[in-house]
Amino acid sequence: MKVITTIKEMQDEIVNHKGLGQSIGFVPTMGFLHEGHLTLISKARKENDIVVLSIFVNPLQFGPKEDFSTYPRDFERDRALAEGEKVDYLFYPSVEEMYPQVPSVKVVVQERTDVLCGKSRPGHFDGVATVITKLFHIIMPTRAYFGKKDAQQVAVIEGLISDFNFPVQLIPVEIVREEDGLAKSSRNVNLLPEERQQAPVIYRSLQEAKNAIYNGEKNPAVVTNRIKELVTNESIGKIDYVEILSYPQLKPLEKLEGSFIIAVAVKFSKVRLIDNIIIQID
Amino acid sequence: MKVITTIKEMQDEIVNHKGLGQSIGFVPTMGFLHEGHLTLISKARKENDIVVLSIFVNPLQFGPKEDFSTYPRDFERDRALAEGEKVDYLFYPSVEEMYPQVPSVKVVVQERTDVLCGKSRPGHFDGVATVITKLFHIIMPTRAYFGKKDAQQVAVIEGLISDFNFPVQLIPVEIVREEDGLAKSSRNVNLLPEERQQAPVIYRSLQEAKNAIYNGEKNPAVVTNRIKELVTNESIGKIDYVEILSYPQLKPLEKLEGSFIIAVAVKFSKVRLIDNIIIQID
Repeated sequence: MKVITTIKEMQDEIVNHKGLGQSIGFVPTMGFLHEGHLTLISKARKENDIVVLSIFVNPLQFGPKEDFSTYPRDFERDRALAEGEKVDYLFYPSVEEMYPQVPSVKVVVQERTDVLCGKSRPGHFDGVATVITKLFHIIMPTRAYFGKKDAQQVAVIEGLISDFNFPVQLIPVEIVREEDGLAKSSRNVNLLPEERQQAPVIYRSLQEAKNAIYNGEKNPAVVTNRIKELVTNESIGKIDYVEILSYPQLKPLEKLEGSFIIAVAVKFSKVRLIDNIIIQID
Repeated sequence: MKVITTIKEMQDEIVNHKGLGQSIGFVPTMGFLHEGHLTLISKARKENDIVVLSIFVNPLQFGPKEDFSTYPRDFERDRALAEGEKVDYLFYPSVEEMYPQVPSVKVVVQERTDVLCGKSRPGHFDGVATVITKLFHIIMPTRAYFGKKDAQQVAVIEGLISDFNFPVQLIPVEIVREEDGLAKSSRNVNLLPEERQQAPVIYRSLQEAKNAIYNGEKNPAVVTNRIKELVTNESIGKIDYVEILSYPQLKPLEKLEGSFIIAVAVKFSKVRLIDNIIIQID
């Protein structure tokens, strides 16, 4: 595995591989890799000639009061994990390399952002779409792998790729969970022990909602209220949002039918967790 | 020459050429080709294996009161001219092909826009940067050719390419002029005969400014006032702006030194003309 820190060197390597007709699988991350990431990498490894993993904690997508400085980082551990997954290139640029000056352009996301995490994180998806645009130009991937845990991010990237005609195939990958159901996340390490014990209630509440819907519940408010009640009663976490929206359009629903997402965000003392399920009712 | 109207077919052709290691020269236009465009094409022809010309009148870059519907169009004439210049592909998509739905993302230009044409055309360069982003993903050019007549556009595209790390080389090409000095433009056909006779005063005023500066004039206001006076006295055109700015940063100057642009825009009855010269004083 080759670790590359400059854009120029990364682009040169990629151009060589593309000249040989090789396919490029790309997994963009902010590092502190967990099994969710490794699942993305292993899928990319199976489906492509060359696998590129990027590790870049992107300041553009953090708000002024968000956890950019405390976002967990452990490069040596990440490097070993990437090597274990047979990654070919680990792209690991500095902030100065990615943003050497005040940028004259940015990507603005105009749809699918005023709901879920976007609502409480103004500008977040502009930052995501901008850095992914840059990374796509640097890595020139055939396929790009994103976890469904960030379902809104997947919806935004889908829009980015199709509206800007990126010659890239988006591969959304299933959520990876702990044995007790908690969705894996780099941020889980910031849960207090008590909170870590309670956190699986988020996924339990989603499962209960799914069962209620399969048993005929059609009213979104009944379902969201039940989730709020469960999470509030069984944890010290505070509900940030519980939303049910069409997927991937992310529009409000009057009745639970078609393809929709149930998405939850819960604030614990030092960390905010998200989870979701996508349901199809015909 | 192959005329292509769908994004998918264009991308497939390009992928084939890139697979053969061929270089792609790209000339994006809004059609109604004149010698300025032909100069760009001929330069692209000399420097690349494959030449792609696009013709697309991009609604995104026209304001609500601008001339999108009256912008001159003549596809059959353009096709013959392109064929004469040995263009390999003429990419000619419809508005519906380029914008099949309300886009979820757009490029916003945050620098170099609140001066010159950008000042009187809010959103214009967002529209330009957005369509060029799409076209770059469709054509995947090795080199992209832009005329220096739209000097602000060249500065914006330079920022777009470098800030978004497009693997594209920008080639700015000198302004092509009529024998009487008027910069060639698709919009010149909309000048009344009397206006057409007067219009060369714009370039004459730029030449006089250049001479004054080479003879020691250091004061931007003296130079811009003299240009306004000349154009106003010798034509019925109304000055939209005369600006002197550092180039390519497009920042105001207190003293005429370094690299700077003198740019002029003049409104005639049915058309607004622009011209500029870039000067280097050490």
